Amino acid sequence: MKNNNFTINYPSIFCGTEKSHISFLSGKPDLVSVFNPGQNPENKRRFFVTDATVASLDCMKDFISKFDDDSCGKDVLMILGSGEPYKTIDSVLRIIKKAIDEGFSRNDVFVGIGGGVICDLTSFAASIFKRGASVQFVPTTLLAMIDASIGGKTGCDFENYKNMIGSFFPATDLFYFPEFVQYLPEKQYFSGLGEAFKTALLCDEELVCLFKNESEKIKNRDVEIVDLIIKKCVAAKAQIVEQDFTEKNIRAFLNFGHSFGHALETIVGLGSITHGEAVAWGIGRAIHLSYKKDFCSEAFRNSVFEILQNFGWETKAVPSIVKGGGIGERFLTAMHKDKKNIDDKIRLVLQKNIKDTFIAEVDDTDILNVLK
Amino acid sequence: MKNNNFTINYPSIFCGTEKSHISFLSGKPDLVSVFNPGQNPENKRRFFVTDATVASLDCMKDFISKFDDDSCGKDVLMILGSGEPYKTIDSVLRIIKKAIDEGFSRNDVFVGIGGGVICDLTSFAASIFKRGASVQFVPTTLLAMIDASIGGKTGCDFENYKNMIGSFFPATDLFYFPEFVQYLPEKQYFSGLGEAFKTALLCDEELVCLFKNESEKIKNRDVEIVDLIIKKCVAAKAQIVEQDFTEKNIRAFLNFGHSFGHALETIVGLGSITHGEAVAWGIGRAIHLSYKKDFCSEAFRNSVFEILQNFGWETKAVPSIVKGGGIGERFLTAMHKDKKNIDDKIRLVLQKNIKDTFIAEVDDTDILNVLK
Repeated sequence: MKNNNFTINYPSIFCGTEKSHISFLSGKPDLVSVFNPGQNPENKRRFFVTDATVASLDCMKDFISKFDDDSCGKDVLMILGSGEPYKTIDSVLRIIKKAIDEGFSRNDVFVGIGGGVICDLTSFAASIFKRGASVQFVPTTLLAMIDASIGGKTGCDFENYKNMIGSFFPATDLFYFPEFVQYLPEKQYFSGLGEAFKTALLCDEELVCLFKNESEKIKNRDVEIVDLIIKKCVAAKAQIVEQDFTEKNIRAFLNFGHSFGHALETIVGLGSITHGEAVAWGIGRAIHLSYKKDFCSEAFRNSVFEILQNFGWETKAVPSIVKGGGIGERFLTAMHKDKKNIDDKIRLVLQKNIKDTFIAEVDDTDILNVLK
Repeated sequence: MKNNNFTINYPSIFCGTEKSHISFLSGKPDLVSVFNPGQNPENKRRFFVTDATVASLDCMKDFISKFDDDSCGKDVLMILGSGEPYKTIDSVLRIIKKAIDEGFSRNDVFVGIGGGVICDLTSFAASIFKRGASVQFVPTTLLAMIDASIGGKTGCDFENYKNMIGSFFPATDLFYFPEFVQYLPEKQYFSGLGEAFKTALLCDEELVCLFKNESEKIKNRDVEIVDLIIKKCVAAKAQIVEQDFTEKNIRAFLNFGHSFGHALETIVGLGSITHGEAVAWGIGRAIHLSYKKDFCSEAFRNSVFEILQNFGWETKAVPSIVKGGGIGERFLTAMHKDKKNIDDKIRLVLQKNIKDTFIAEVDDTDILNVLK
């Protein structure tokens, strides 16, 4: 044959959107004012997805009732079960099936109203529905506000592994009502704080000081301090994802505490422990490993442990929730399946100090050493 | 609150790859030489996906046996069932599950060896596996060489609708053995020709003349003419996807004949008719509608019909494979679910002449008029 090769050049594209617009809205969450169900701006229909817990909140009553009394026009609301056990491909397919049945087009908009699970599921469904419709979020948990809703990571769990399936697909619009944080059960609030503390260690010394010195205000959900935590964390995460959207380098730092944390979630069963709680424990393990390998000082390790303990997060080598034998091996197996690993070695995010973070491939024995 | 808004800017990214490299390889397909199973270039493992039909081809024997006698090293081969009925989310998840079980990382490579179904499934799985690994193709059908393998459309059928779920995710490398075309059953070969004829009408007058004047050589799979068809179609499609990767405008022309064709596939059951056969019938309907609406001349309509009929493709208003009553309504229902529709109107690709194509929203009555 004469012509032996041929090259096709593809343009780079914006997945999902070019920009996420975040609107901070104070006071009681008023979704009716934000969305006006039944009125379709730009002729776009909205496919709202939320979960049973959010749907049952007092402040959601007016919004939900729009779909009961048929004043929602061509908009649709779907209410899924709550929590990590619903973060499945089955939930994603249920969203897509209903959107097909209701005649939605790829020019319509999906809107996730909920925590990280709802945001991740809804945006993953939007990203693969007819090869991509757009998505908006109303994050209702601290965790979703400061983490899940920003930066376009979508997905679901699979075969009991966290976020094994997914895409990069940011939301076009995010509507933040910090007031939602006041509605959270204690465990969910502290889960969000776990991620906030991680962000502080990575990016914001002032925020670390806040965790150290204002712990009572934080624990009591002081409105101003909650607002401050949200804004600081959003700013920090935005800066990272703007620089490294697809996690080729520094975005991987955001996985600080997550290799241990995800493994813990897998071992105890997804949903048995909150994500932030698992991450907080993982931070302790990563810092302890940093210390053991002489990357950080004992003083730094101790100061981090002090904050973790003050917020009630476990710092023991093996969290009390883990039962049975062969614990080290079980962790290794789970950690070897981590998405970040490139070959057989486990890649960990470690710290020398606040804002001094790096990634290292570590030996299995290093991992085992901090799990006993 | 003081700061009421915040914007996060995302970079545009290359999904899957920046370039597809196509290598045309003559002679008997020799996959062992191309891939050297067991030798992992750049430390990347390969996850090969093929189907039972391709795996049973004589020319695949040496390659397949590498996985039987364990000389495949860390590479893995998965053999799926053949044909459209396997183009399901279940097949996609089976690929992902096996890749997880075998410890694949997102730095490894998925390789689809087969027709459009295998290429679409494998690349969709790759695109959502740990949020994206890369993919390569060895297209083994004419259809996959000239269409499915180019341009990054991935996906699977869902709820009996074609390609309802998917992503944009091109392959990095494509290995073309035109010789594979000689192994195709007659129906599969003609299915590819249906798409090739569509491409000809859209982009290449010379190729239309070939269909008109060299039909015997084409039908007999003359090696030179098959090579020419492949190269012309690849060049035409490459030019279109380079200009409009995500189908915001001219790429939609490639759906010529597909609104009717996909509806026909849905109505008779996916897999009951080949894709190209359905498209060829759909071209007839689109041209006839163009003629009825005075967009094209009778002479143009007749010349297209003559070629369709010469290749044995149906030009009747209702193909003989469709049984039962209410045919017009059943087509309308299916066509209203087409991904291309923006609101309630059906969007069709129509032609005034060869290379003179446009998109129009048409009334349901226009559709019904050409289905009886």
